[in-house]
Amino acid sequence: MPTEAQWHTMFPSDLANNTTNPIRKIVDHIKMPKDPIKPLILLSLGDPTVFGNLACPDVLTDAIVRNVKSHKHNGYAHAAGTEAARAAIAARYGTPTSPLTKDDVIIASGGSGALDIAITGMCNPGDNILIPKPAFSLYKSIADAHRIQARYYDLFPEKNWEADTEQMASLIDNRTQAILINNPSNPCGSVFSKSHLEAILRVAETHRVPIIADEIYGDMAFGDAKFFPIASLTSTVPVVSVSGLAKQFCVPGWRVGWIAVHDRNDVLKDIRAAYFKFATVILGANSLIQSAIPDILTPEAGSAEEQSLAKFKTEYYSTLEANAQFTLDTLRQIPGLRVVVPQGAMYVMCGIDTARLDIKDDLDFTQKLLGEEAVLVLPGQCFQIPNFFRVVFSAPQDKLAEAYDRIKNFCARHTK
Amino acid sequence: MPTEAQWHTMFPSDLANNTTNPIRKIVDHIKMPKDPIKPLILLSLGDPTVFGNLACPDVLTDAIVRNVKSHKHNGYAHAAGTEAARAAIAARYGTPTSPLTKDDVIIASGGSGALDIAITGMCNPGDNILIPKPAFSLYKSIADAHRIQARYYDLFPEKNWEADTEQMASLIDNRTQAILINNPSNPCGSVFSKSHLEAILRVAETHRVPIIADEIYGDMAFGDAKFFPIASLTSTVPVVSVSGLAKQFCVPGWRVGWIAVHDRNDVLKDIRAAYFKFATVILGANSLIQSAIPDILTPEAGSAEEQSLAKFKTEYYSTLEANAQFTLDTLRQIPGLRVVVPQGAMYVMCGIDTARLDIKDDLDFTQKLLGEEAVLVLPGQCFQIPNFFRVVFSAPQDKLAEAYDRIKNFCARHTK
Repeated sequence: MPTEAQWHTMFPSDLANNTTNPIRKIVDHIKMPKDPIKPLILLSLGDPTVFGNLACPDVLTDAIVRNVKSHKHNGYAHAAGTEAARAAIAARYGTPTSPLTKDDVIIASGGSGALDIAITGMCNPGDNILIPKPAFSLYKSIADAHRIQARYYDLFPEKNWEADTEQMASLIDNRTQAILINNPSNPCGSVFSKSHLEAILRVAETHRVPIIADEIYGDMAFGDAKFFPIASLTSTVPVVSVSGLAKQFCVPGWRVGWIAVHDRNDVLKDIRAAYFKFATVILGANSLIQSAIPDILTPEAGSAEEQSLAKFKTEYYSTLEANAQFTLDTLRQIPGLRVVVPQGAMYVMCGIDTARLDIKDDLDFTQKLLGEEAVLVLPGQCFQIPNFFRVVFSAPQDKLAEAYDRIKNFCARHTK
Repeated sequence: MPTEAQWHTMFPSDLANNTTNPIRKIVDHIKMPKDPIKPLILLSLGDPTVFGNLACPDVLTDAIVRNVKSHKHNGYAHAAGTEAARAAIAARYGTPTSPLTKDDVIIASGGSGALDIAITGMCNPGDNILIPKPAFSLYKSIADAHRIQARYYDLFPEKNWEADTEQMASLIDNRTQAILINNPSNPCGSVFSKSHLEAILRVAETHRVPIIADEIYGDMAFGDAKFFPIASLTSTVPVVSVSGLAKQFCVPGWRVGWIAVHDRNDVLKDIRAAYFKFATVILGANSLIQSAIPDILTPEAGSAEEQSLAKFKTEYYSTLEANAQFTLDTLRQIPGLRVVVPQGAMYVMCGIDTARLDIKDDLDFTQKLLGEEAVLVLPGQCFQIPNFFRVVFSAPQDKLAEAYDRIKNFCARHTK
């Protein structure tokens, strides 16, 4: 018994030591200029609300105002979410070929909380999951924390970031618990075609591996690109779809995400039960925000609310689409950059031609661009793809124009 | 490669299999009467909002209305909580002897989310933590899920649920990472005296074991009982205090809790860093609710808001105190029950005299009371203490009177 001992600094748990945020690790090494020569323009944050030009739907605001005043939504909700909210999610995100009931839906603390449940309910230490490269860093963070192996399949920039399905198949072994896809994609801004989704489903079907689909950007697809929920294209492959209010309704800070389990052949019945069990221990999402979910997902047909929501969606998506086009038109004129056409979400990835520019890599590009032009983008290494950088194009067009002009000057100055 | 395999039912992960909610396990076996002979009265839910008699402060509602309309609080907050909210928590919950800054505060998804971070950031599989008995079941759930051993120290009902500090000391070994206390207590409704808290601190000090203090019921103490934050009574023992808005502000569904690390000798500096790291991976609490935290925790001195909040607190606490007194006065008249004086929170524990009543145990009591009198209480086994039951006394007094009358009739009918 250490009765004579001193207090010593305690060590964190292995779980904590294994928990890392790769973006943070990289971004923390980027030096912010102390006294930027120009006003800073941040094109780095995947948050459509930062510039104040994009607001959530009035129907949502009105529902929160009404419901907070009622004092009827302050108490504990059902651990996996209110029945009304889960029923609305099931009605809105089920399709004729992939129907849902409220018992397939688990509401969690944001899309991140939902992904954490989705992955850790299915995988043990030593199991593996297939993850796209480039990808949102959370997948790897969750896997690393729980000593689940992350195996990467490549996305081809030259094919609009389609997955290498041959490589995907080759990575599968008997410890592969899931193929994770992200569609529309962060950081790529790509949207998979129906035929490409079917090719992925064939891999899953052949090898009997279920799919975890991060579909948080939902139907945010532009032009000819069309979003297909992957579950709607199969009647056999089990799909755990993750989504939430964050991006589709412009409220990422509100932390309401969910899991929808599409499992027509009872492959995931015990996994689904496990997800509900996780929810009963640490309750997930805010009851007040949940109370507004039926208002925004299942407005009455023909109602003023339905029209208002349709107007919101049209305006929101067309703003993003116009920004995507403006971004493409502008950035592709800059010698030294290779822009991959953005099709959805609010991102574009640009390749850096290091043969043409006196720039070492994407970290070097990001740091110098920030120091010389006060524009912050995220280096591709945050997403495991060097020599690219990610631009978030949700800012107002005059801000984008200013930022892109600075990038143009920067590249001109750094041309060999 | 299992190309010929069929789809088989998949097994959940060990983490999921090890995750259980003991209350759920017990309550799910209680049969709800299909056609209750009387209107059902639920005295089982630890949620002050269920009967509609207790509402959150107007200052809170007004702040949410104002802030949701501003559209300025929809985006991502700092991963560990907004600076303004963390500064307000530090100002409100720091004391002269245990000061806090915003860098000591991590905001999470509810008190439960905060406890999960507090425990799992500090303990590895095979480590142990000391937990009170009886106790809120979440402590054991978190420990079990992560294969951390829960070691129980007893609380003495005959001493107003004070802890057996000798036993507490005897349980400590070199894998003991923390002593967890819950004050004011769920399910006991007890409040530790200053001298008892000092006795617990002596155990911690002697054995160099930090304290995790679940203080979610904050200063909800009645009559002569006074709540002392345990960190305010020591300058050496590191204390991780967990609290939140849930109970003190009557919004348990809103899921805003926090950790405050009191660590004046840098024993927990790496643990605190680990807590912040957890937060950067899965963002915690809702940005909209966080925006109201400064309004309710640090109103301007002398302002109308401060007065309104003081009035709320007086009314809320005096309602609970009157209910506690009414509960004590009424239930202690019932032969066959042993009521332990409630001092805080919104709970009272009643012992069942099975020598006097033809009742087998607390499960039998609960089931029969529900079937015969349509009153639901929680059996002590939910809290690891058989032959007690827990009453939540936050209901309006007429409801409590009706329920207690039914309990009286029930006990009379079941007297041997």
